[in-house]
Amino acid sequence: MELENTLIDLLGIEIVELSEERAVATMPVDKRTHQPFGLLHGGASVALAETIASIGTFNLIDKEIEICVGLEINANHLKGKKDGVVKAIGTPLHRGKSTMVWDIKIVDEEDALICISRCTMAILKKR
Amino acid sequence: MELENTLIDLLGIEIVELSEERAVATMPVDKRTHQPFGLLHGGASVALAETIASIGTFNLIDKEIEICVGLEINANHLKGKKDGVVKAIGTPLHRGKSTMVWDIKIVDEEDALICISRCTMAILKKR
Amino acid sequence: MELENTLIDLLGIEIVELSEERAVATMPVDKRTHQPFGLLHGGASVALAETIASIGTFNLIDKEIEICVGLEINANHLKGKKDGVVKAIGTPLHRGKSTMVWDIKIVDEEDALICISRCTMAILKKR
Amino acid sequence: MELENTLIDLLGIEIVELSEERAVATMPVDKRTHQPFGLLHGGASVALAETIASIGTFNLIDKEIEICVGLEINANHLKGKKDGVVKAIGTPLHRGKSTMVWDIKIVDEEDALICISRCTMAILKKR
Repeated sequence: MELENTLIDLLGIEIVELSEERAVATMPVDKRTHQPFGLLHGGASVALAETIASIGTFNLIDKEIEICVGLEINANHLKGKKDGVVKAIGTPLHRGKSTMVWDIKIVDEEDALICISRCTMAILKKR
Repeated sequence: MELENTLIDLLGIEIVELSEERAVATMPVDKRTHQPFGLLHGGASVALAETIASIGTFNLIDKEIEICVGLEINANHLKGKKDGVVKAIGTPLHRGKSTMVWDIKIVDEEDALICISRCTMAILKKR
Repeated sequence: MELENTLIDLLGIEIVELSEERAVATMPVDKRTHQPFGLLHGGASVALAETIASIGTFNLIDKEIEICVGLEINANHLKGKKDGVVKAIGTPLHRGKSTMVWDIKIVDEEDALICISRCTMAILKKR
Repeated sequence: MELENTLIDLLGIEIVELSEERAVATMPVDKRTHQPFGLLHGGASVALAETIASIGTFNLIDKEIEICVGLEINANHLKGKKDGVVKAIGTPLHRGKSTMVWDIKIVDEEDALICISRCTMAILKKR
């Protein structure tokens, strides 16, 4: 998958692990992901979470005949962060034929929870 | 509020209206906000929605003694989009002393609904 | 549709309007829907919201070949209520081939917002 | 806490464990919690989830000076169920001064996931 010229690349998101069981990515906390008061923008966290769910689902579908799209995402922001790096760990809670549901935990360098998210992906047949 | 050196600036988000009744912003759909298949990244939509709720709430609080932070956000992605511009219209559904809840609708140039989001902001006393 | 011997009947929910454009139902606030402190239980509000989305979707699908199931629901509780009746007004925000998304507003007798909810329904082919 | 004359009692919900680390409750799947097609009503699952988060939070606050109210709840329905009993296991993901966030997993007798929910509770000072 080509990440150049995407939001994913722009935010500095890097996929560091991708398997049947989980997807993991990192994202820097700097001016690219800050809100006006110098803290991690909640929207950056959600963009990271949705990236994880999308790439994790894409990794599990039959790419010959299926595509996947994000249906719904939600997130609680639990802790502020000024700099450094966050890590997102995504786990498929449900692997159905037409939907997958992912749990995504975003943590800081000490594994403290920054954001908790859940994302519902739809799996559609290619036409 | 200084938007330079923030995610908001990076994504090309522009605040075009800000009042007691609503907050409106635009965001381009281009390589800055694309996912790998050239469509609007759902995470970009949510970043736009949370920006609207945050700036809309900040506009309504007593900035001498209060600050606001995002607690929760959710969104349904309803329609894909390849290029052009999206517009987000935020409306405060609830204006409480300790929380505000915003409804955010993101539409395309023909006012078709691209994404619907709801965001809960906490209002805290400065210490 | 037979509502006897269901949660819907048990909570005293009554469907008062059902059309292509919206679904409306009422629910009493009494010991059937109270939490331990004598206020409307948030779970009762969500049960009302999901009932509206389900019946509203069922009304719009092709019942010969399709069924519908709830995928996701979310809700913000905005105002407490001790007694009387609440009314839920559901509107389809999105009518797709495989999903519908409903906005549900729950109001009191003076139309003040008690709860705001959004529900994603899946439409599946009968096998 | 008195559960008689509440929704909790009406649905047959029983609290089976309550500690600093988690709250667990059971709920029967029968006519009290069915939707019209004889399956567990998604709204019953959410009522169970919100009950867990509320009672779990109430157990952790300083009841002399604090009260708690539900702010937001969301849930994905992952699997249907016709009869028997479901069990909900709630865990506090975040214990803040003004909010708590709970993860609630609802499982069947074989520990298969029926519903996954997250609930945000507000902690307020008594006046």
